[in-house]
Amino acid sequence: MKINFRHKTELRVRYGETDQMGYCYYGNYAQYFEVGRVETLRSLGISYKELEDQGVMLPVSDFSVKYKYPAKYDDALTIETSITEVRGARLLFDYSVTNEAGQLVATAHTTLVFVAKETMRPITPPESFSLIIKPYEQN
Amino acid sequence: MKINFRHKTELRVRYGETDQMGYCYYGNYAQYFEVGRVETLRSLGISYKELEDQGVMLPVSDFSVKYKYPAKYDDALTIETSITEVRGARLLFDYSVTNEAGQLVATAHTTLVFVAKETMRPITPPESFSLIIKPYEQN
Amino acid sequence: MKINFRHKTELRVRYGETDQMGYCYYGNYAQYFEVGRVETLRSLGISYKELEDQGVMLPVSDFSVKYKYPAKYDDALTIETSITEVRGARLLFDYSVTNEAGQLVATAHTTLVFVAKETMRPITPPESFSLIIKPYEQN
Amino acid sequence: MKINFRHKTELRVRYGETDQMGYCYYGNYAQYFEVGRVETLRSLGISYKELEDQGVMLPVSDFSVKYKYPAKYDDALTIETSITEVRGARLLFDYSVTNEAGQLVATAHTTLVFVAKETMRPITPPESFSLIIKPYEQN
Repeated sequence: MKINFRHKTELRVRYGETDQMGYCYYGNYAQYFEVGRVETLRSLGISYKELEDQGVMLPVSDFSVKYKYPAKYDDALTIETSITEVRGARLLFDYSVTNEAGQLVATAHTTLVFVAKETMRPITPPESFSLIIKPYEQN
Repeated sequence: MKINFRHKTELRVRYGETDQMGYCYYGNYAQYFEVGRVETLRSLGISYKELEDQGVMLPVSDFSVKYKYPAKYDDALTIETSITEVRGARLLFDYSVTNEAGQLVATAHTTLVFVAKETMRPITPPESFSLIIKPYEQN
Repeated sequence: MKINFRHKTELRVRYGETDQMGYCYYGNYAQYFEVGRVETLRSLGISYKELEDQGVMLPVSDFSVKYKYPAKYDDALTIETSITEVRGARLLFDYSVTNEAGQLVATAHTTLVFVAKETMRPITPPESFSLIIKPYEQN
Repeated sequence: MKINFRHKTELRVRYGETDQMGYCYYGNYAQYFEVGRVETLRSLGISYKELEDQGVMLPVSDFSVKYKYPAKYDDALTIETSITEVRGARLLFDYSVTNEAGQLVATAHTTLVFVAKETMRPITPPESFSLIIKPYEQN
């Protein structure tokens, strides 16, 4: 089921996230996207922390990213996160990262899977989640 | 031009690389693949450090990874890195990660781009690199 | 020369910063303190990024931290950063970290050194810095 | 009770561990010291992973480090780890880091605390640990 919900989060590139090329290290974007999706869920009233406390986990099953323009130290980046689809146990997100000058820094995609903490098996999304996401379904 | 060169590197999941799910955090694999490609180049007699000292950089332009099975703390992982193609300024790598039990943990792909440090523009690979890689070209 | 300037910064513990103990990994606090001092300098109108662009760097020469109470995933932490002293080329900071419940999470201390980017030798702080910090000197 | 046991571990500075100063970021040493103590325990036949599986955790309660000489990308560092003391529930380690040229890169100290996973309360070290460490006691 296609979903259309977007949220913007801002964060700054930390010094420890740069590398000697003078850029934000390519491996650090994964954490930025995690911040993007946690804040996107929070803006919907969904706490990822509470999901885990209720025994539901959301590991990433695949992740891809295209680096378009380098992010540098102290850049204030905008992470636009879109929830694009719920497909069975899967939850799909798209991301785009822009800098203060409006340049596109990166685009990315992740697939997460709802799993039960106890069995580590895929499960259908909890109803509390489905109810909140329902108004954003697309036909 | 297709290339066929493979190399295996071993590393252990550090405590600080786990997350509260008890798994190696999905964002830390990028660093493992970097270690894989640096050691693969080193096994060919190519030092990435020296490339940079000579004014050639190799930023990642795209990266994708599929997580198949969780890596846990202290797991001794084998990163098999393959150089698969040189396409103009681009250098393509594939990776597979397995644990001690032989389980497939992840597969991944990266594209890197040879750029001149001074101009940050794509360049043809340095001849020192091309000469070393030549014997591994595929028809 | 003793200085008395304090600033508070808030940040949230990211998922990737936890470890399998369920706590924020002890090694990640160094980055929190860096964020603390960068924002403290920014609040004074000093951009660390501009300092570097002007050829002045501020590497850390020593760092100590006491962990008092675990920080957990999604905790909103307050980093209180104090500039406590300028001693020749040295700049001293103290930090305290508290969680939303007001519990003391950690205290820390760092010494940074003003160095010239070109020579990597200690230098007296740039005048632009000294003028801004002057009103906060203690007798 | 004073202990005298030393162990050397080698590791290489990863690209993602450098910062734009061209040095290994000061915050990454915490992970190097963790690798040092895990390998030091392993050399004694003690698996930190098994300790945790048996319900014993070893969080760090304090950590201090002095940075003497910058570590750079691809440097092969030697971490010399010393177990120096067991004091009630506390386990003390000292570290020194040297580069290939024999230059002293950093010295550090950590205090860890044996705690029960269930209660998170300090406990006396498990007997399996004490028996192994006994031969290295100093008078």
